[in-house]
This record gives sequence, C-alpha cells and structure tokens, in this order.
Amino acid sequence: MASALRVLGIDPGLTRCGLGVIDVARDRSASLVHVGVVRSDPESPIEQRLATIAAGIRAVLVQHQPHVVAVERVFAQHNRSSVMGTAQASGIALLLAAEHGLPAATHTPSEIKAAVTGYGAADKLQVQTMVARVLRLDALPQPADAADALALALCHAWRRGPSPAVTGNGALTPAQRAWTDAERRARR
Amino acid sequence: MASALRVLGIDPGLTRCGLGVIDVARDRSASLVHVGVVRSDPESPIEQRLATIAAGIRAVLVQHQPHVVAVERVFAQHNRSSVMGTAQASGIALLLAAEHGLPAATHTPSEIKAAVTGYGAADKLQVQTMVARVLRLDALPQPADAADALALALCHAWRRGPSPAVTGNGALTPAQRAWTDAERRARR
Repeated sequence: MASALRVLGIDPGLTRCGLGVIDVARDRSASLVHVGVVRSDPESPIEQRLATIAAGIRAVLVQHQPHVVAVERVFAQHNRSSVMGTAQASGIALLLAAEHGLPAATHTPSEIKAAVTGYGAADKLQVQTMVARVLRLDALPQPADAADALALALCHAWRRGPSPAVTGNGALTPAQRAWTDAERRARR
Repeated sequence: MASALRVLGIDPGLTRCGLGVIDVARDRSASLVHVGVVRSDPESPIEQRLATIAAGIRAVLVQHQPHVVAVERVFAQHNRSSVMGTAQASGIALLLAAEHGLPAATHTPSEIKAAVTGYGAADKLQVQTMVARVLRLDALPQPADAADALALALCHAWRRGPSPAVTGNGALTPAQRAWTDAERRARR
C-alpha cells in the first residue's frame, strides 16, 4: 500500500489510552497496522502517568510513522470524574503530533459512529463489529479503547474526502465515484 | 539564596499560560526570579497552539531550573468553553515536569487564595496585592495569569510545610516557629 494514508487514531485516556494505526488506500479500503492500549498506574503521580502515556504514543509514532493523527474530542459536559484526565491525555496526544511534524484532527464520538456505521447513535458493539469487518479482523478488537482508536482512524480517513488531486467542480470524478462505491460496500 | 526552593508555578491556559518562578528561603521569604505569559494564536490549529505553550514552558524550565512545578488544578464543573483547552495545557505542564525529572503538584484556586491571603474566597486584587507585597514588587504583576502563576508558586512553597530535616515529634521546632512567624508577618 505505497500510496495509502496511514492514520494513527488515539482514544485518549489516563488509565487506558487506545492507539490504532491503519492504512487506508485511495479506494478507501483499509488494513490494520497496529492496535494497542497504553495503560498508566492509577496509584502513580499524575505527571508520571502522563509521561507513561506520552512514551507509549511516541513509541507508536516512531515505529509506525503515520501521516496524520486523529484524536477523539473530549467534552466538558461528559460529567465523569475522569474527564479532566482524558482532556490532559488528549492534549498530550495533540502535542506529540505537532512535535512529530504531523497534522492532527479531532472527531466527536457521534462523527466517529456515523462515519463507521452510517449511524451517529450506533452502540459500541455495532462500531466494533464494523471495524472488525472493514479491517478483516477475525475477532472484535479488544479492549473497547483499542476498538475506538481504530474506529477514529477510519473515521478520519473516510471523512477527509477526496485528495486535492481529484477534487474539482463539484461533480464526482471517476475516482470519487469509486471511493463512494467502495465505502458503500464496506458499510454493508 | 543557595538553599532556597525554586518553584515554577503554571496557570494553565491555551490563549494565555501564566508562568512564575520564585525562590523561597527556609524562613519562607520569597523573591521573584521570572514572571511571564506564553500566548498562542487562537487562529492556529490546536496541536500548534499546544506546541507553542509547551515550547514556552520548556524554555523557562531550561533557563531557570526550578526544583518543583506547581500547576493550577482544573475542574470540569467550571463550565467555561475554554475548560478543555485549559485541561490540555495543564496536562502538558505536568508532562514537561515529569520529562525534566521534576516533581509536580496541583493546587486548587481556593487553596492558592487561602495560602497567599489567608482567605479562600479572596478576590483577584487581594491575591495580586499580597503577591506583590511578599515579592516586594513595585507594581501588581500583570496580566492576571502571571499573578496567578506567582500566587500558585507561593502557595506550593508555603503549603509544603517544614522540610524533613526539621520535622519531628509534632511540636514546633525553632525553625518551624520562625517559619510560622514569617508567614504570619507576610500575611499582614
């Protein structure tokens, strides 16, 4: 997949931070490169926990050399006690993208669900099932944070639309039509 | 001040991040080392903004070599639209402390007010006035983010209590009494 777009999706978290790397071809077919979770010890000081998360993200950036980083967007109104730690981890994910010279993007959970399943209120199992199907995995990606990171990476690649080379006057080019068809097939 | 504790206080923010460095002697007297604000352009992508904040914090860490980093604690219930950016910046501040091998601590706004003015519900002007008095500044520190960073650094140094060398059986040592007196004088 020489011309594929390699996306690192990061589902930020302090206790578990999901990391998923996929290659997405111009026809929008996707393949798994890496999936994993970085954990930090809840008993450790917060600065050490954030350093552990940063080290895990850096290792994936260095090993898999993505072209772009997509980070799940965190909302304050998610009134969980973990929301501040999640926001801190997301800041670190975005910082590391910038420090590796990579563009970054954030996507909301409903954008991710809509992009992957066609339905913004899809449940976790629907998302995981679609991720496994699109990436031709034998089992559902585990744990959920890892599956979320893969869904996010897929969302980013699929939402970004056609590359500049094929954008034009508003009508679909043959390449755009091929992508749209491939995406439709993938969502069946 | 060879034996002084050098504290970097960070008032995290994405648009303005306050940075204040002070030296606090064993008698709890304090002096200003550095105060400033790192700004990032609201028009820039979030990852570039966070990288700008990180670069500003790193520069102060390298130039002023603090012993400890204190970061203002961010709460989700502060229902401002900026709270997520503030949390992201605080995560970066804590990460950079860890990556420089420094301990970090967080303090709440009311802890800071109480430590500096003796009153947890003090207003901004009271805090700034006390910071200027304790540090023997000719004018109130400006902008507010810079004053907050200095107050935070003072809070951290004053709250940490006596050093292990003088802690003992619960009674105040002569050194502890001297500190307590000095702190009382500073709060007048």
